[in-house]
Parts: sequence; C-alpha cells; structure tokens
Amino acid sequence: MLRYWTAGESHGKGILALVDGFPAGVELNLEIINRELLRRQGGFGRGGRQRIEQDQAEILSGWWRGVTIGSPIAIWVANRDYKIEKMDDLTRPRPGHGDLAGAVKYFSSIRGILERASARETVGRVAAGALARQLLSACQIDLLGYVVEVGPIKFPAKEGHLDMLRQLRDSSELYTLHPEGEEEAKDYIRKCQKEGDTVGGVVEVRVENVPFGLGTHAQWDRKLDGRLAQAVMAIQAIKGVEIGLGFEAARRPGSQVHDPIHFDPSQVNSRTLGFVRATNHAGGLEAGMSNAQPIVLRAAMKPISTLARPLESVNLETKQPETAAYERSDVCAISAASVIVENVVAFEIAAALVDKFGGDHIEEIRQRIKLFEQMNRERLGL
Amino acid sequence: MLRYWTAGESHGKGILALVDGFPAGVELNLEIINRELLRRQGGFGRGGRQRIEQDQAEILSGWWRGVTIGSPIAIWVANRDYKIEKMDDLTRPRPGHGDLAGAVKYFSSIRGILERASARETVGRVAAGALARQLLSACQIDLLGYVVEVGPIKFPAKEGHLDMLRQLRDSSELYTLHPEGEEEAKDYIRKCQKEGDTVGGVVEVRVENVPFGLGTHAQWDRKLDGRLAQAVMAIQAIKGVEIGLGFEAARRPGSQVHDPIHFDPSQVNSRTLGFVRATNHAGGLEAGMSNAQPIVLRAAMKPISTLARPLESVNLETKQPETAAYERSDVCAISAASVIVENVVAFEIAAALVDKFGGDHIEEIRQRIKLFEQMNRERLGL
Amino acid sequence: MLRYWTAGESHGKGILALVDGFPAGVELNLEIINRELLRRQGGFGRGGRQRIEQDQAEILSGWWRGVTIGSPIAIWVANRDYKIEKMDDLTRPRPGHGDLAGAVKYFSSIRGILERASARETVGRVAAGALARQLLSACQIDLLGYVVEVGPIKFPAKEGHLDMLRQLRDSSELYTLHPEGEEEAKDYIRKCQKEGDTVGGVVEVRVENVPFGLGTHAQWDRKLDGRLAQAVMAIQAIKGVEIGLGFEAARRPGSQVHDPIHFDPSQVNSRTLGFVRATNHAGGLEAGMSNAQPIVLRAAMKPISTLARPLESVNLETKQPETAAYERSDVCAISAASVIVENVVAFEIAAALVDKFGGDHIEEIRQRIKLFEQMNRERLGL
Amino acid sequence: MLRYWTAGESHGKGILALVDGFPAGVELNLEIINRELLRRQGGFGRGGRQRIEQDQAEILSGWWRGVTIGSPIAIWVANRDYKIEKMDDLTRPRPGHGDLAGAVKYFSSIRGILERASARETVGRVAAGALARQLLSACQIDLLGYVVEVGPIKFPAKEGHLDMLRQLRDSSELYTLHPEGEEEAKDYIRKCQKEGDTVGGVVEVRVENVPFGLGTHAQWDRKLDGRLAQAVMAIQAIKGVEIGLGFEAARRPGSQVHDPIHFDPSQVNSRTLGFVRATNHAGGLEAGMSNAQPIVLRAAMKPISTLARPLESVNLETKQPETAAYERSDVCAISAASVIVENVVAFEIAAALVDKFGGDHIEEIRQRIKLFEQMNRERLGL
Repeated sequence: MLRYWTAGESHGKGILALVDGFPAGVELNLEIINRELLRRQGGFGRGGRQRIEQDQAEILSGWWRGVTIGSPIAIWVANRDYKIEKMDDLTRPRPGHGDLAGAVKYFSSIRGILERASARETVGRVAAGALARQLLSACQIDLLGYVVEVGPIKFPAKEGHLDMLRQLRDSSELYTLHPEGEEEAKDYIRKCQKEGDTVGGVVEVRVENVPFGLGTHAQWDRKLDGRLAQAVMAIQAIKGVEIGLGFEAARRPGSQVHDPIHFDPSQVNSRTLGFVRATNHAGGLEAGMSNAQPIVLRAAMKPISTLARPLESVNLETKQPETAAYERSDVCAISAASVIVENVVAFEIAAALVDKFGGDHIEEIRQRIKLFEQMNRERLGL
Repeated sequence: MLRYWTAGESHGKGILALVDGFPAGVELNLEIINRELLRRQGGFGRGGRQRIEQDQAEILSGWWRGVTIGSPIAIWVANRDYKIEKMDDLTRPRPGHGDLAGAVKYFSSIRGILERASARETVGRVAAGALARQLLSACQIDLLGYVVEVGPIKFPAKEGHLDMLRQLRDSSELYTLHPEGEEEAKDYIRKCQKEGDTVGGVVEVRVENVPFGLGTHAQWDRKLDGRLAQAVMAIQAIKGVEIGLGFEAARRPGSQVHDPIHFDPSQVNSRTLGFVRATNHAGGLEAGMSNAQPIVLRAAMKPISTLARPLESVNLETKQPETAAYERSDVCAISAASVIVENVVAFEIAAALVDKFGGDHIEEIRQRIKLFEQMNRERLGL
Repeated sequence: MLRYWTAGESHGKGILALVDGFPAGVELNLEIINRELLRRQGGFGRGGRQRIEQDQAEILSGWWRGVTIGSPIAIWVANRDYKIEKMDDLTRPRPGHGDLAGAVKYFSSIRGILERASARETVGRVAAGALARQLLSACQIDLLGYVVEVGPIKFPAKEGHLDMLRQLRDSSELYTLHPEGEEEAKDYIRKCQKEGDTVGGVVEVRVENVPFGLGTHAQWDRKLDGRLAQAVMAIQAIKGVEIGLGFEAARRPGSQVHDPIHFDPSQVNSRTLGFVRATNHAGGLEAGMSNAQPIVLRAAMKPISTLARPLESVNLETKQPETAAYERSDVCAISAASVIVENVVAFEIAAALVDKFGGDHIEEIRQRIKLFEQMNRERLGL
Repeated sequence: MLRYWTAGESHGKGILALVDGFPAGVELNLEIINRELLRRQGGFGRGGRQRIEQDQAEILSGWWRGVTIGSPIAIWVANRDYKIEKMDDLTRPRPGHGDLAGAVKYFSSIRGILERASARETVGRVAAGALARQLLSACQIDLLGYVVEVGPIKFPAKEGHLDMLRQLRDSSELYTLHPEGEEEAKDYIRKCQKEGDTVGGVVEVRVENVPFGLGTHAQWDRKLDGRLAQAVMAIQAIKGVEIGLGFEAARRPGSQVHDPIHFDPSQVNSRTLGFVRATNHAGGLEAGMSNAQPIVLRAAMKPISTLARPLESVNLETKQPETAAYERSDVCAISAASVIVENVVAFEIAAALVDKFGGDHIEEIRQRIKLFEQMNRERLGL
C-alpha cells in the first residue's frame, strides 16, 4: 500500500509530503523532484510570488546511502516567505476560495483557512508524485502532462513518442505541445490581466507502457478510474475530470467509442502481451482496470479565484457588501496545473502498481512484472 | 464513518450491499429502496433483462422494530435469473468491457470477470444510496438526478423546486426534465438500435439544502469534490465527472466563473446562515467543502459496450480475429445511469454529513446541526 | 488488500461476512467453513442455544464453477431462531455486556445493542477466517488453536507436528491438548454452573510455516503484531493478548528472552532460508514482522457475562437497583473462543500474506513466494 | 477522523509525526510535547544516547497565532547525532530485533532496517500523543502511565486522584508509583548491567473522566479495545496487552469479574450520568465501548534486545556463527515505555473522542459533549 498526505500552510514554515509504503532499492534523485517543483513555478501568466526563489526539496527520511529502504519518506520544501504569524486576518471571504465555507465549518478566521486551502499545498503533491515517478521509471512507465486548452483556445494533443512530445512541451511557454503557436493564447492572457481578470484551461496527462491489471473491477473503492478521479478532482481549482474520450464519448454512438481488440504476434511484450488497439477511446481503462493502452486523462481548471478587479463579497463583521480581499496572484496557472495533475497521476499509477505487484523492493517488483508476463504467456499460449 | 461495499455477480445468487456506520433511530423504508431499484430498471431503450421481474430488496440486518440500531445494514437483492454455474465461458473479450484486462490480471476466464464487472452490480450501489437518502431526508437534504444529454441531443437542466422537477422527471420516459420533448431522442435511440449500435449520455445530480462544511480543504483524501468524483467515476461506463460549470469553467474568464457572496438577513437559516449567491457556478463546492449552495454534478456515460453489431475482437484460444461475443443487452441505459449516479451521490453526501455531524443517532445529528447553526450565529452576530 | 466486515444480529435473520480482495483460483470448500462453525458451537460447558441446530454457511457471491474469481465473497449463516422483531426490550443492563454503554451512546434500547454485541457475531468472523485458511493452506501455512487455561486450571501447550496436536485437540472435550486430563476442569465448570457462576480461560494459536516478512517495521499501523492484537482484542470477551512469551518476557532477563539465530544449511527452504532458532520466545514476530518461526499468540477470555445468579444492576426506568436480566447462556465458552481466535488469526495472517505477496490469483501468490525465495537465495549466497 | 503516521530513522535527520484531522481552536503548548519527550529520555537504567541532548519538538505546520486551525500538524524532532550516511552496515543480525526479518523481506542491508525499527521512532509517537492530550485536557480527560513491574519486581498500582499519583510517579526514578521503594529494582537493574544483561517490565495506563460511548460494538475494526491493543502492541518491544483485569479475568469465576452497575443520583454528570461501579475489572471497556469508568490498560515490554554480552547470531556473509553486533544501549527502558504507552493511548482515546463527538473545533466538541449529556438526561429522566 503506497499512500501519502501533505501538511503545511501557504505562509507557514514550509510544505511537507509524507509518503508511506515506498519500496526499497530506488536510487533517490532529488533533481527530479526539484525539476518538477521548478516547472510548477513556471509558465506564462504567473504572478510575483513564483519569482521569489526556487522551491528546493529536502528529503528528511527514508534512505541510506542514497537509496530508499522501505521506510516512510518525508519531503520538506521550506517556504521562502514564512510570515504566517505576522499576517492579518481577512474580513471579506473571496468567492471561489474556501474562505467562507471553511470559516463557518471550523469556526475559524479566514486566514486559518486560506493558508491551507492555498494552491501552495500542491508543492507537497508534486513532490510526492515526483518521487513516485522514480518508481515508475524503474518499471519503464513514463508519463507526460501538457496544456490542451487555455481559456477558449485549444491546443490539440499530438501523437508521438513521449520524449518527442516532452521536448515540444518543454520548449513551450504555456506547457502546450504547440510551442510555435501560443501567441493568441498569450495575448488572451495579457488582455485578461489588463482587465483584472483571470484565465483557466484544460490539461491532459498521458501515461505510457502501463501493464495490464492496475486497479480492479471487483470493488468500487479500488477501481483505478475512481482513484484517479478522486486524486485529480481534489486538486485546487479542478472542476472536471475525464478519461479517454470523456464527455465526448457520451455524444457518439457506441460503434465509434469502443476500441476493437487485435492480436499482433510481433507485439507480445510485458505490457500488451500482443493485444493491441487501433484506437484508445477508453483512455487505457476498462472496468476500472488498465488495459495496457496508454492511460489518458484530462482535467478542467477554473480560472484563478483571486481577481485584481475583485468580486463582490460581504464584510463578515459589518455584514455589508464589500469587494473581496485581493492578494497579488497569478493571472493564469494552467501551466502549473499541468505539472500538478501530471505528478498527482504519477502517484496514483505508482500506488496501483504497488497494489498489483507488491512493494518491498524495486527489483522484486520488476521480477514480478516479468513473472506476470511469463505466466500469462504460458496460459494464453503466446 | 459511514462506508459501504458491495458483493455479487450478474448471474449469481444476488447482489449485496453492506453499509457500516449508519446511525440509529432511522425508520427504515424498504419502499424507497425498491422505488429506486425499479427506476434503475426503467427508462426508454432498455433491453430484455430489465423486464424479467422487478428487483426487490431485503434488509438482512441492522434494525429492531423497523428502526435502525447503529449496526451494519446488509441489503440483499436476489437475482431472478441465477444461473452462473450453468453459464459457459466466452472466448472473445468484448471491447469496452473489462473482459480482457480482467482475464489477464486475474488469470481468469472471461466469465469470471464479466459477471462482477457487469452493471448489475449497481443494484448494490443504488440500494446503499437509497438507504443513505433516508438519513439525508431526516436532515431535510434532498437530491434529484436526471438526464441532460442523450447521445448528441441536449435536455438542459431547469431551475425550480426539486419536487416540481421531480414530477417532470418522473413523467419522462428518458428521465429528463423535458417529458414533452423527447421524441427526437427516442427516434435517435430507435435508429441506433436498428443499426445494432448503442447510445450514451450525460446525467446531472442536484443536491439541495446542504449545510456548510461537508468535506474539508485540509487533506486531499478528505475533500468532498474528490470523494464525489471517485464514487461517480467508479460507476460502470462513466468516463467523465464535472462539478458546477465543470469543463465550461475552464473556458470562461474568472469574472464569469466565481460566485459573488451576498448577505441576506432574511435567509439566515440552518443552511445558508444568510450567505447567498446569485449564481452557483462552483456547484456548491469550494476548496473541497460544501458552501451551502446546491451541489451540482454531472457525469458522462459512454454508450453500452455490448453492440448487436459486434465489434472486432480476438479469439483468445486461436488468436484469430473474430467479432466480440454478444449477450442481449440495452441500447441506451442513460436513464438508469441517472438513478445510479443520484444514489451514489446520495451516499457520499450522507457519508460527509456523518463525518461532519457524527453518526450515532439521527436525532443527535439533527441537534448537532442546530448547535452548529447556533454557534455560528452567535459568533458571526447573525 | 484482503479485508472483511460482518453484519447481523443474534436473533436477526442471520450473520453475514463480506470478504473483499480474496484471490482468484482458490477452490472453495464449504465443508471447511461448516466444520469451523460446528467446532464453534461445541465444547464442554455450552448452553442450550448451541444445540438448536448446526450453523450452515452459504456462499452468496464470488465464485464460478466452485472456484473463486477475485470478486468479493459474501458468506451467509442463517439464524435458526430468527425472532428479533418479537423480542422485548430489557430494562436492566447486564454488567460485562455493552448494554449500558451502547444504550447511552446510541440513545438506544438495550435490545438494539445486545443483539449486535452478542458473541453470535463471531459466526461471521469464523466464517471469514475459515475462508482465509483455504488461501493459507494453498500456501502450506497451517495453524491450530487450543485451550491452555480453563479458569484456574492450566493445560500447557505441547511441541509436535500440528497434525498430531490437532488430533489431540479434536479428541478433547474442552479443545485442549490434554484430552485425557480434563476431569478437573470439567468438575470446576460443573461446580460453577451449580453456583450460577461462569468460567473463562486462555487460548493459544500457533501458525506454522510462515514465510519471512509478513507485516513490516516501517509504520505503526502496518505492523503485524499490532494487527493481530487488534483483531483478537476486538473479539467478544477477550481482555488480553500476548505474543510469544508475552507478559512472561517482561519478567525475565534479556538473555533468557531473545532467540539466538543459527544457520542450518540443511534447512534452506522457502520459509526459513536456513535461519533457524532453538527457541521461539518472540512468538515468530520481531519488529512487527514474521521471522519464519511459528507465530504464537495467546488470548485471555473473561468468564461469560451472563450469570444464572445474576449480578446487581439498575432498572433504567425506575433507577432502582435490580438484578440483571438473564437469558439462558453458556457457563464456559473457552472452547468456542479457541475456534474464534484461531480463525481470526487465520484471516490476519492471510491478509498479511496478500500484502506481501499480492492477491490476484493463488498461483501467482505461490510463484511469488518461490521468486522471493530464489531472489533471497541468490542475494545471500544460499 | 484523527490519524497519524511517523517518519524518520534513528540516525537520520530526525523524527517526524504527521497528525491529520486535529480540531481547530486548541492552543498549542510546545512545552507539553517537550515535557513528554524529556520524560521519554529519562528513567533509571538508560544508556548513553539519552544523555546526548534533550529532544526538542518543532511544529512545522497547522497553526496560526498559536492556535490550531484544523490543518495537518507536522511535528519535527531533529536528531542530535545525525550520521546515517556515514554509518556502516552490520553483518550479523541481532536476535530480538527486526534485523533478519527485515533484511530478508526488503532485500536490504541490516542498517536499512534497524534505523527505522529502532525505538527512536517512538519519539514521533510520543509527540503525536502529547499533542492529542491537549485535546483531551480541553475535554477534562486526563491520563497517567506508570511502571508496575520491573523485571520480576512488582510495583502495584494505587488508587487516588491522578494528580496525586502523578506526583508520586514524577518523583520516582523508575516512573513507578512507589518512589520510596525502588532500591531492590535498581539493584536488580545494576546486577543485570554488570552481567551484560537487560531488563523489561510492565506498564499501566489509566485514563480518567472518559465519557460513555467511545468506540463501538458494531464492527470489529472500530472497537476501542481492538484499536488500543493495536496501537500499544505496535510499540517496539511490547509483547502483551491487557485491559482491566486482563489475563487475571480468565482465571476468576464470572461473579468476581463483572462490575455491578449502580445508580447514584449525586453523580449525575457529563461522564457517568450517575451510573457508577464499585469495581472496574472491565478496565472501562465493555463490548468495545467506553463505559464511563476509567480505562485501564497494561502492556508488557520485553527486555532490551541489544545485550552487552551479545547473543549468538550468524554472519550473513560467511554463514558462520558469530555473536550479534553490539551498539551501546540501555539496560532497562521500562520507564520510557511507560511514557510511550501513555502517549500512544492518549492518541487513541483522542481519536475515539473525535469519532464520537466530531472534530472541527474544540469548542464544538465540548458543546457536543454537553448536548450528549442533556439528551441522555432527558431520555433517561435523570
């Protein structure tokens, strides 16, 4: 069982991720975590805070001589602007944030809520996911997240090897797969900024080389599609999740939705076993299980809730209408969202991998994947 | 902690739901469960199996003198066509089903997978949800599920009192809110049926009178939006979930997404405390918590995977291409999906209610809701 | 993840166990479950209820052609004296039972509590455990529970092959390993019965052929000693649990407690890998993990709480002192307790086995145990 | 849901506790945590490491202006002798430790296991428990842990107000309730030390002023006796747990075990509601629920596994017999164990309190306890 939780506030001492059940034998690469944290701070349309200084992860526990030992791994990212004790409370809850609901639920100051509800918490989720991808890559599973919509503008996904697509994305200011065609979107963001408005978007994550059988059909709370949906919907500002064709599947006839199954003896390997599909409308998941096709998931992010041209709210003390509090913020964080969703998905895939193949040592996992292939080859006569 | 699991196969003895942590003091109403089970079997476009005979729930445990006692409640729905032991295996996995992935994962026959992966399992989820709504209604929380898209045809949601909307829906053959305008959709379904094709759609659920503070912003795995997304995405054939504006939120500027907060002294009650919104684009959830607005969620259902004009597949024994196995099936089950999603959402809201307000006796919950209101009124000077 | 819950009341329709995560490919043997249920009803000193008729398990779900399919397995044991709706409430809570605490906690009738708190619930726990032992035996793990104390009289454990010890136990009226020497204990029970009193005792369970590494040292809530202690202490009437030497270990110096490690090249097998111990004071568990020695656990059962010579209590309506209600009951149920603890331990060992070696198909588990052995042999040069 | 996990190794950077679900509104008192950590380092018979320097907790998250805000609380205790990267591996597993089982399970170095299996991890468990007791004391629940056996020497528990008993304990070198009578035990420890041997013992924890209804009878995994047993048995070196009379209950007739119930109108308060007992053999728990009597639990600690006169072991490289590795260690840590068990129990009681009474704000909990009392008074006519 691979699991994690986070702790930490936006202007507190820092953000923590505690990962429990991570297998032994994985060489820890802090740079991968820091790389993802850096990417999380980037993207066109970000506000001042991201520029303070780069987030740096510190691994507090769980290794010896640079290698994991099966112990819980705590990752700590210090906040550069730790000042929570000096910060004032807010009197006007900001629409779109948890300010009002949290203040009522917890009998709390607004400050006491926003500090934890803040998207800064995603530092911990990215760190945990970036750790998890080291487990995935040891099993030859790779994944990529990118932006496919910026406000009303679309950046269609592309086919191709993930390394090639990664190059495209990494040369894009908006983390799309269209580095050359982003001027319109950037103009749109600039226009919104001028108007004190904000911009949302849609991200897609693609996971490749996934073996058969992650997740299960047998019980609702262990289905992988449900697990992924929970993890992604629980990300700040995410309002929609879809897998494969998603909502589009609802609008097509079945004959244009389901992916015919073919057997190709030249592709009998540890993943497909030779069972291939010409299409992948299911997004790699059937009946809550991976089907050896790429897992493809999209998430919709609403625009940033803090607007420079503030929304109407109410002063909790006077009960009189006032505009919402404004703290300097991003105009568009969809690029960051692509990093967060990518890493959150990475964690869930890794957790499902550990569920299916065990989790005590990375080499044991690899050998069990091989054993799984062998046993299926034998049984199916492949 | 209110939780549940199901057991049972499509052609096994029956379907079971085990609900643990249900409060004492709730008068059990079997008719409500049977009503939802009946609705699950209905809707235009259903196949032969639904007509066999009506599902009837039996409550195996958890009550004395017709009232719950805090014990686990097991609900049993016998299968009218129990014949699993006599049923043959399939040799050709059906695209869109878990046949292939499950057979590989579990080293299993296809029969061993499809019997559990079948949508018949949702009988258990509906039963558990229909039980949970008896807890909700004791707390004046009501909800309604309805169809808003049938294949390419839209049936927009409507404003209005849930009782009025429920009347509309219950007089609709397709469980939309437009009983008078369904001819086009029915024609479309008939046309697909003639062509051996199938039809999907989109459902919406609306939960009203939810108090502040269900769910939390504090930890990712306890956020209510994530919990709802998991529960709904884990329903058979669901490929997308969105809350409030959902994907549309990603395409609008922030000024047209977030819901300004107003204070209306005439609406200070146990739910809103007077904090009202003119819009509800957030769908009642901000930062993973309920904000006293209606919770609105949509789910996309792909078309039925079993087509009369079967899809290409492969014979697992010969590895030769063959068309997929066909068992008589529905053409369109979106109406049933609206019942399933509605009841699955009911369960998650009830679980979140028990998390926030406790769960030992229904009257204790009601008194705690009052106490919550009183303490907040006092603190906020309402 | 192998897990289970139970439902059902003492005089309700029956008792249910829902087992989730059970691997595919196990041939179900109903007789094993019924055999354990029968044993649970036996033993010297039992009251009238056990004689009504033998409990019979029915498997409601989770198999095809007699073999498990990875689906949840629901086991149902009907109550022969279903009459809960006709039963009256009690006015006087019985000391030693949950009557008072439950009635206050749940704002409940006493009837509403005692029906679920009753030891009849252990039917479900035995059924789940008896299922789990079919998984264990497929992996050559065997276990035996027996009585080692009856009130003040001791029946020391014995060394020997489990089959031999099982024969002793099964020819014993009290389920001890001393079938020839139970007269004193039976006299003691008879004497207590005459005096309207009741008798407790101590049981021991011994699990053999356990591989290394079930449980873990890495996180408190995944340690196997803790898991076993929870499962056993949560059995009705159990007030103490100890592993290996248990409390005796606290009283000896360390040199007489810890078990020296030896390497014996003639015993390099899939369990010990050749690492043997002359003593097993640790009871097979070090740092929350199995160490390939037999797991040995003892549990203390208090005497039956319902006495024919009733204890003082209070009438909840009048608040006046009255003696507690009496329903015909056992005098001594320690034999039954040995069956319950044995099967509860079986389930936890099976769950730990599934955690370590996975759980999709029994043959996959077996192969992974082999792989584990091979990899360790290679690494350690065995 | 109040829950926690720990991370950190013995010679790593430090030990972490992550507490999730802690209510808002509790004034954090770091001194209470540091006081318990200091006590954990004390007691007669401790080795050199405890003298390095006092452990100091740092709270990394979860508060604003000194008060909890409902966010996860991470507590960090830096290790004064952080040197894990420079430490060598061991070649000879130490009996009584997890060295061998862990090295096999995780395909690991011994160092990789012992660093996490070390009792140093209990720093995190004490810190979490010391935080939890701040919640308990806000609800007038108090508890005390003390030593009742040191090796073969007994220090019987005493009756009296916890403050008085606490004074006794805090003036005792061994943390017993007999500060004046410890010479024999200290001599015994000195003797064992001279002989290169080690000493174990038994501790008792007493929790007072517990309301009715923590835990439940309704499902095995939510029973409070089981939860306590798991938490305590999962502490390093604990081999037995008993509640109330424990094993002694098994040896007495029922008439001398169960606690008659009386009603005393002068003691109708928020805890007992007037239902009192002259004895408390049940240790405050009946049917897995608190019964408003003090919860009394004992735990048996085996002697320290690391002996100066080392035990026989085997060199994993040569497979030849060698004595076990020795790192300077304690002779007797039973005093520390009393601190650890006390705080671990504190956490579980707090978690059960949050389960029963909710957990969003401490004042809400307090008001709900009052409401519970009022509703029961009304219902029972008190």
